[in-house]
Amino acid sequence: MADKLNKNDALFQFLLRLGDNTLVLGHRVSEWCGHSPVLEEDIALANTALDMIGQTQFWLGLAGEVEGKGRTADNLAFLRDVWDFRNLLLVEQPNGDFGQTMMRQFLFDAWHSIMLGRLMKSSDQRIADIAEKASKEVAYHLERSADTVAGLGDGTEESHAKMQTALDLLWPYIGEMFVGDEVDAEMVKAGVAPDPASLRDEYDALVGRVLADATLTTPDSKFAHKGGKTGMRHSEHLGHILTQMQWLQRAYPGATW
Amino acid sequence: MADKLNKNDALFQFLLRLGDNTLVLGHRVSEWCGHSPVLEEDIALANTALDMIGQTQFWLGLAGEVEGKGRTADNLAFLRDVWDFRNLLLVEQPNGDFGQTMMRQFLFDAWHSIMLGRLMKSSDQRIADIAEKASKEVAYHLERSADTVAGLGDGTEESHAKMQTALDLLWPYIGEMFVGDEVDAEMVKAGVAPDPASLRDEYDALVGRVLADATLTTPDSKFAHKGGKTGMRHSEHLGHILTQMQWLQRAYPGATW
Repeated sequence: MADKLNKNDALFQFLLRLGDNTLVLGHRVSEWCGHSPVLEEDIALANTALDMIGQTQFWLGLAGEVEGKGRTADNLAFLRDVWDFRNLLLVEQPNGDFGQTMMRQFLFDAWHSIMLGRLMKSSDQRIADIAEKASKEVAYHLERSADTVAGLGDGTEESHAKMQTALDLLWPYIGEMFVGDEVDAEMVKAGVAPDPASLRDEYDALVGRVLADATLTTPDSKFAHKGGKTGMRHSEHLGHILTQMQWLQRAYPGATW
Repeated sequence: MADKLNKNDALFQFLLRLGDNTLVLGHRVSEWCGHSPVLEEDIALANTALDMIGQTQFWLGLAGEVEGKGRTADNLAFLRDVWDFRNLLLVEQPNGDFGQTMMRQFLFDAWHSIMLGRLMKSSDQRIADIAEKASKEVAYHLERSADTVAGLGDGTEESHAKMQTALDLLWPYIGEMFVGDEVDAEMVKAGVAPDPASLRDEYDALVGRVLADATLTTPDSKFAHKGGKTGMRHSEHLGHILTQMQWLQRAYPGATW
């Protein structure tokens, strides 16, 4: 890929990464619909999922435009197979219990809000505009997920134990957010996006503060599962998500509302 | 349907019922592959699943032949949607724990073995031949599932409680096996298959004996969920099964080995 990567290819890949993150996490969160512990949370999760699907339409819509082969956001969402997805491994992990879902959300929201803040200053005005729009929604997602993580972590003995288990389980998926490759290098060069590694200090500070409020112990391992954003290796879960998410367009090609 | 049901339509429906039972249960059991509690059980479950998929090829192959529209067993398995499936609701129920899977298997095997015994005397030689072949496999499935139900039921306090829970959960799905409709009436008239209700006494005796060995309490309710074999109303689980089972043919139409 490195040989022939031009700015346009890199931009397409970069946009897929943004759009696939919100698509896959949006789908995951939507799985809670009708199953949440209380009605308030059910509605909140459904709204969060909808926000992310809305952001997906912008990112994948722009990706299709940049690619220039006539693919729409819907084509990209519903007609690619696993190996063409570019989302972080974190967002395809199973929901687990409510606490695990909220921990995953918090760990993503924290990164997402910092990344969108940087993208608001992108040299690509289309990206800056989408980032500005999305960042308002994500600020709210982060407030909510951080409060929930803090509340459940510093809650009962049982809720504390569950949140610590969730954190230990998901922590190895954090590192991938900060690993750059030639796509990122191209984006940095063009002033489109920041170096992923440059987000880490702010992320650690933000997450550290919330986890301290939550009385949770941050795992000291830096081991990181990788392969999602590059598409080299997704976890087995993504294929199962696609079977459900893409069912309608696969079984009834071209179906519209 | 009653107006225009001729013998050929009825025969097609009847064969779909047989083939869809083994297809859907075979798929469900295959979900255990690599996840069973011990290696011996993993292999046994995989073999059971394979037997049922093999039987499906016979039943749905003949169904396609009888229908006369050129559909193969693969077409029928992979390109129908939920409303065209004719399996019993029992077989599409989730696996639950190992005990629940084995209870579901036992409740099905008991009916299946009796039904195949009757079908060996079918006036339709093709059906009699498939039934004879399948009944040898099913006799073994039944021996195994009955032994497991008896062993776990009359086991530890925990295994007993789990098997009783499984029995209570699945019992309302038994009644559907014995409810006849116009398709069955047509089959009885043609000497192809028995009246479903005529299997109940033998079933109750067989199941009663094993559940007594298992020290389990047979629920005294005769309430029965219905709608699977007629296709009027499947449970939500069937759609989820199809998204996974049909993924490959839906995403890559016409793909072959």
